[in-house]
Amino acid sequence: MKKENFELRNVKGTFDFLPQSQAIRNNIMDILKKNFVKYGYMPLETPILNEFDLLKYKYSENAEILSEIYRLTDQGKRDLGLRYDLTVPFCKVIGLNKDLQMPFRRYEIGKVFRDGPVKLGRTREFYQCDVDVVGIDGRYIEVEQMQMVLNIFKELNIDICIKWNNRKLMVGILEYLGYKENQFDEIIGLIDRCEKITIEELKKEFEKIGIDNQGATQILDMFAKSLDDYAKIAKETKIQNFVEGVNECLEVQQLVEKLEIQNKVVFTAKLARGLGIYTGTVFEFFDNEKRITSSLGGGGRYNKIITEFMDNGTEYPAVGLSFGLEPIYAILSETAQNNFVDVMIIPMDTQIECLKIAEKLREAGFKTIIDFSGKKLKKSFDYANKTNIKFVMVVGENEINTKQFSIKNMQTGEQFSFEIEKIVEYLKEQENK
Amino acid sequence: MKKENFELRNVKGTFDFLPQSQAIRNNIMDILKKNFVKYGYMPLETPILNEFDLLKYKYSENAEILSEIYRLTDQGKRDLGLRYDLTVPFCKVIGLNKDLQMPFRRYEIGKVFRDGPVKLGRTREFYQCDVDVVGIDGRYIEVEQMQMVLNIFKELNIDICIKWNNRKLMVGILEYLGYKENQFDEIIGLIDRCEKITIEELKKEFEKIGIDNQGATQILDMFAKSLDDYAKIAKETKIQNFVEGVNECLEVQQLVEKLEIQNKVVFTAKLARGLGIYTGTVFEFFDNEKRITSSLGGGGRYNKIITEFMDNGTEYPAVGLSFGLEPIYAILSETAQNNFVDVMIIPMDTQIECLKIAEKLREAGFKTIIDFSGKKLKKSFDYANKTNIKFVMVVGENEINTKQFSIKNMQTGEQFSFEIEKIVEYLKEQENK
Repeated sequence: MKKENFELRNVKGTFDFLPQSQAIRNNIMDILKKNFVKYGYMPLETPILNEFDLLKYKYSENAEILSEIYRLTDQGKRDLGLRYDLTVPFCKVIGLNKDLQMPFRRYEIGKVFRDGPVKLGRTREFYQCDVDVVGIDGRYIEVEQMQMVLNIFKELNIDICIKWNNRKLMVGILEYLGYKENQFDEIIGLIDRCEKITIEELKKEFEKIGIDNQGATQILDMFAKSLDDYAKIAKETKIQNFVEGVNECLEVQQLVEKLEIQNKVVFTAKLARGLGIYTGTVFEFFDNEKRITSSLGGGGRYNKIITEFMDNGTEYPAVGLSFGLEPIYAILSETAQNNFVDVMIIPMDTQIECLKIAEKLREAGFKTIIDFSGKKLKKSFDYANKTNIKFVMVVGENEINTKQFSIKNMQTGEQFSFEIEKIVEYLKEQENK
Repeated sequence: MKKENFELRNVKGTFDFLPQSQAIRNNIMDILKKNFVKYGYMPLETPILNEFDLLKYKYSENAEILSEIYRLTDQGKRDLGLRYDLTVPFCKVIGLNKDLQMPFRRYEIGKVFRDGPVKLGRTREFYQCDVDVVGIDGRYIEVEQMQMVLNIFKELNIDICIKWNNRKLMVGILEYLGYKENQFDEIIGLIDRCEKITIEELKKEFEKIGIDNQGATQILDMFAKSLDDYAKIAKETKIQNFVEGVNECLEVQQLVEKLEIQNKVVFTAKLARGLGIYTGTVFEFFDNEKRITSSLGGGGRYNKIITEFMDNGTEYPAVGLSFGLEPIYAILSETAQNNFVDVMIIPMDTQIECLKIAEKLREAGFKTIIDFSGKKLKKSFDYANKTNIKFVMVVGENEINTKQFSIKNMQTGEQFSFEIEKIVEYLKEQENK
C-alpha cells in the first residue's frame, strides 16, 4: 500500500497535541498529581481494554451511553470495549483485590473514549483525572476534597468557586412537593439546566414532561431557597430524604465556615451534577472569570455503586472527584508560555567539544541542544528565533583554545564572553530574573 | 444486567497496576521525561484511535503484524485501529504539519496495543517511551542519544552497556559474502538470535532457509569480527554498503572514544535491532547484571520511512530510540520501596482542627491523611502498620489546648511532643536521615 492510496488525516473527534499545547497539559497533570499525592492518594492504572459486559454493567438501562462505547473483538473472539470512564475500572479493581486495605485512596489520570457527538470541547478520546477514596463516610472527607480543589486551583492560578449541593435534599424537595420517584431524574435534569437556558425555554421543557407553568414555577421557587429556608422546613416535615439532606448540608456548611472557605464554597440547591450515581454531597467548580462557563470538574459521594457491585454484604461508601483537563487547558492556554530550549550551541567544526559543553549545561539544569545541521550561521539564528530559543552560543576553535565562550541573549541581543562555569552562573541569574 | 451475570476479570493480556507497582512506573517515566526535556525533546501526544489505512501503511507486506492490530468501527462506519507503535503516529504528525520547524525533536510516552501472543513480559496493552528527532543526519546526534541513554540509566541506578552496529555494514557483509537482497532479512533475523539459541539450533535454522553448515559457519565467523577487521576489508572492496557502513562505524567509534564512553558503548556486528526500518547506526542497551537478558530499549537511524511517507522530494533523516518500561520496571521493582503517606493524623473529636493541621503538613511537603473512620485507636494503628505509614499523630482536645502535639515514629517506636512548627522541623530532619 502506497501513501497516495489514502488521505492523511486524524480520526474524527481525535486530535494531535503539538508541543506548545501538550506542555501546558503536562503541566496541569503534574500539578494535579503532586497535590493528589500530598493528600495520600496513590497512583493506580487500569487497562483501556475491558470486557464489554463490565462496561455495560453500570449503565445497563441507558442505551444511549452504551452506543457510545467503542466495541471490538480480539483474535480470541472476546467481546471488548474501550473504557468510557475511570469509575467502572476503579470498581473492578476493588472487586478483584479483596485484600486492599480500606480506606483505599487512589488517583488515576488516563484516556477514556466516547463515540459520541463531536462539538467544541468534546472529543472522542480524552483524559479524565480522577481522585477517589472508598471506605470513608461522612462530611469531613468531602470537605477535605474541596480543600484540595482550592489548593490545586490556587497553584494553577485560576480563581474558582465551588458550588455544592446534596442529592438527598434534591430528592427530598421533590418528595415534599409531591412528585413521584419515576419523575425525579427528568425534573432534576431540567433543574440542572436552569442556568443554561432561558426561563421560557425551561418552562417549555417542563411542559414536555407533563408539568404545567404553575408546577414549574413552584419547583423553581423551591429550588431557589437558602439553606436556612430548608432548615426551617426540615423542622416541620418528616420526609426522610429532606431531613437527612438538610442535616448533611448543615454539617458541610459548618465545616466550610470553620475552615473559613465560605467565600469560595457556596451552597446552591440547583446543582445536580448529572444523574444517577450520587447519593449525598455533590459539587462542581467554576472559573470566577467565566472564561469557561461549564464546570472545570466536580465530584461527590456515591455510596451505592461499589457496594452493589461488590454484593458481599459490606458497605463501600465512596467519594471522589474528576478534573476536566480540557476546560482547564482552555483557560491556561490563553496565557501560558513555554520554552523548550534554553541554549542552542552552534559548533564551528567543534562538535565533539560541544557535546561535552552541552552535557555541562544540562547537568546544571538547562535544556540544551546542539545545532548539528552544518547550516550557515544566519539560518541557525533564524531557527533559534522561530523556535523561541533564549540563548545561543557559537563555539569555534578560538573559544575552545581560550576557554572563553560567548553567549548571546536572543531576547535582549546582549552578548557576553565567559568561561563555562561563569556561563552557567549567568544562565542561573537570567533564569531567576 | 446484574453483576452475578458476568465474571469479574481483566481482559487477557492486560493488567491493573496497583499503587506499589504504578509508583515505580511513574518514577521511571518521570526520570525519562526529565532527561528528554534536557536534551530539547518536546512533548507530543497523538491519539490511540487511528485510521486502519494509516496503521497498515508501514507494514503493508507483513500480514502477521497486521493481524495484531485491534480493529474496530465507529458509529460513522469508519475503519479504525488502535495504534501498535508511536512511530507511525509520529510520521503522521510530520505529514499533517508542514510548518513544523526542522529539526523537530519530540518525545511521546503512551500506550500501544498488540493483539498478539501473551507471554512473560509481553502484554497486549503497554507503554512505549519514544524519543525521536527528524531533520538531522550524521553521527553526532546518534552519539548524543547514546550519551542521553547513559545519563538516564545512571539516574535510574542501573549499570548498562550499549551495544551498537550499523545496518549498512550488515547488508554490506552479506553482499560481500555473495548473498542476494531477498535473503537479507531472513539471515539478519537469524544473526540477531545467535546469542539466544545454541549454535546447533541456529545452524538448523540456517538449513531451513537453504544455507548449509559451511555457509552458516562462514556467516557467523564474518559477523564475529572486530571493527578493525572490517576496516581492513573495506580498503579492498568496492561494495558501497560495506564501505559506507564501515566509515559510519569508524565515525561513531571515534566519537565514543573522544567522549570517553567506550567502556559502556561497544560495537558488535551481530546486533540487528529488528528488521526493516533502520538505515544506519542501530543500538540496544542491556543490564550489565543480567537481571533481564533482553534489551532495555534501543534505537537507531531510519532515514527512509518519513521521507517515503512524505513523498515530496525532501529528505527527512530521522533517528530515535525507545525505552522499554516493563524490563526497566522488572529490574527496579526488585528493590524499590514506596511510601504513600508520611503522616496519619487521628482526631479524637478534633476533626476540624486536624483538617487545618493536615494542611500545614502538606504545605511543608508531607503526604498527610486524616483518619476519619472513628475506629478504635488500635485499629487505626493497625492500618498505619499495614499501609507502611511512617508517622502517626493522635490529636485530642488536650493537644489543641496546649498546642503540644505528639508524633509517633512507627519505625522506631519513638514518640515526641512538639508545637506544630517543631513537628514540621522534626519531619524534615527524619526525611533527610
